[in-house]
Amino acid sequence: SPQTCGILTVSDSCFSHQKEDTSGPALEKAFRKAFPDFQISQKAIVPDDLQQIVDTLNKWVSEHCNVILTTGGTGFSPRDVTPEATRAVIEREAPGVTYAMISNSLQITPMAMLSRAVCGIKDKSLIINLPGSAKGSVECFSFVQECIPHAVALITDQTDAVQKLHK
Amino acid sequence: SPQTCGILTVSDSCFSHQKEDTSGPALEKAFRKAFPDFQISQKAIVPDDLQQIVDTLNKWVSEHCNVILTTGGTGFSPRDVTPEATRAVIEREAPGVTYAMISNSLQITPMAMLSRAVCGIKDKSLIINLPGSAKGSVECFSFVQECIPHAVALITDQTDAVQKLHK
Amino acid sequence: SPQTCGILTVSDSCFSHQKEDTSGPALEKAFRKAFPDFQISQKAIVPDDLQQIVDTLNKWVSEHCNVILTTGGTGFSPRDVTPEATRAVIEREAPGVTYAMISNSLQITPMAMLSRAVCGIKDKSLIINLPGSAKGSVECFSFVQECIPHAVALITDQTDAVQKLHK
Ligand code: NA
Repeated sequence: SPQTCGILTVSDSCFSHQKEDTSGPALEKAFRKAFPDFQISQKAIVPDDLQQIVDTLNKWVSEHCNVILTTGGTGFSPRDVTPEATRAVIEREAPGVTYAMISNSLQITPMAMLSRAVCGIKDKSLIINLPGSAKGSVECFSFVQECIPHAVALITDQTDAVQKLHK
Repeated sequence: SPQTCGILTVSDSCFSHQKEDTSGPALEKAFRKAFPDFQISQKAIVPDDLQQIVDTLNKWVSEHCNVILTTGGTGFSPRDVTPEATRAVIEREAPGVTYAMISNSLQITPMAMLSRAVCGIKDKSLIINLPGSAKGSVECFSFVQECIPHAVALITDQTDAVQKLHK
Repeated sequence: SPQTCGILTVSDSCFSHQKEDTSGPALEKAFRKAFPDFQISQKAIVPDDLQQIVDTLNKWVSEHCNVILTTGGTGFSPRDVTPEATRAVIEREAPGVTYAMISNSLQITPMAMLSRAVCGIKDKSLIINLPGSAKGSVECFSFVQECIPHAVALITDQTDAVQKLHK
């Protein structure tokens, strides 16, 4: 069975249909292009509500989603709680992924300081927070995508795949 | 009403008047120059005592201080507990701000590795830990000051101000 | 009495003698070369088991080990829990050390994103997580070794030594 990816848009205004979700589809396109062998198994839009984010992440983890990308809710607005929800779900933090994202983003704009993104592992899933704009989320995905095949192989304990990737 | 800033010097020796506080005044000068429209609404010196740091931060947060700069107590000495006090107060961490600070500091000196600074948000306040020396604190402030107007506008939910800053 | 260093190899396969421990000895050699005045007071191999890592770290901390280097268990495999064990032991995190390590590693390989290393302080001990390979662990040690004399002097509160190092 193919490896799977879930894309979660976190946004009050997209959830209430006041705004169109452009980052979810943009991320899906970027992910499909980078990893044509993966299946996009889940897509959803939730409001900036900690419990709804936590519940969706946990549901997708329990469905063995290999990679979960979130877009939105990582900034400084009072409603931005995606990092806190992610931290509540993950068992093991992956600060190297976050580091690569912020480090590259800061070379584009000092406003990357305002990102509070968190990355980490729960069971067989790698969860990666991305910013809310279509441009920012695709850009940040491009900064970390290179680690995804190796990360998924390690998390799912595919020793053969890991050795192949090392060559 | 103007936006406000509090400057907290954390130092046993300054608190006990064994040493003069030079970083508090140096930071005040740098902040006023960068943000002449802000009001410096609070200034204090506390010893390197976790509870006193926590209490002062919480008091200033409850008084709706927009930006709280701390100087001192971020190093490796047994009494250095400003990051732990800050972490006990904040609701949402802002690792991008910390990142920008350490990243730039490391280009000046490898001893920046010894910084344990934490930045984060509680209610309407952005709390930023800066090092204890006058030179180091002003230098680190200069690395992150650019994000402050946007950060404050987002934290206080001023959508108009945010859109203006984006132009 | 001389300052001391402990080197802990975390690896299921080295513990069960399926694989030879090459990173422990490689790190010992690198540490001795960098700091000939230190004594390597402890060496051990433990499996990738959170409780055994925690117990060994706490034992070495109680024996006043100044620097504790771990190698292994910082990646994405399900058994990799060295960062979680380290976090359970330390009282004060040292993110600047981790930052310097990841930052330099990413300039060598994007796979450094997969490092989840944690550094921090408990009592009089500085604990530094290093990767599991001999090459990676020695490389990462070289990125942070410069801060060790100053860090140890501060943690053990040797004001004279600190002032000497500042000159
Ligand atoms: Na943390």
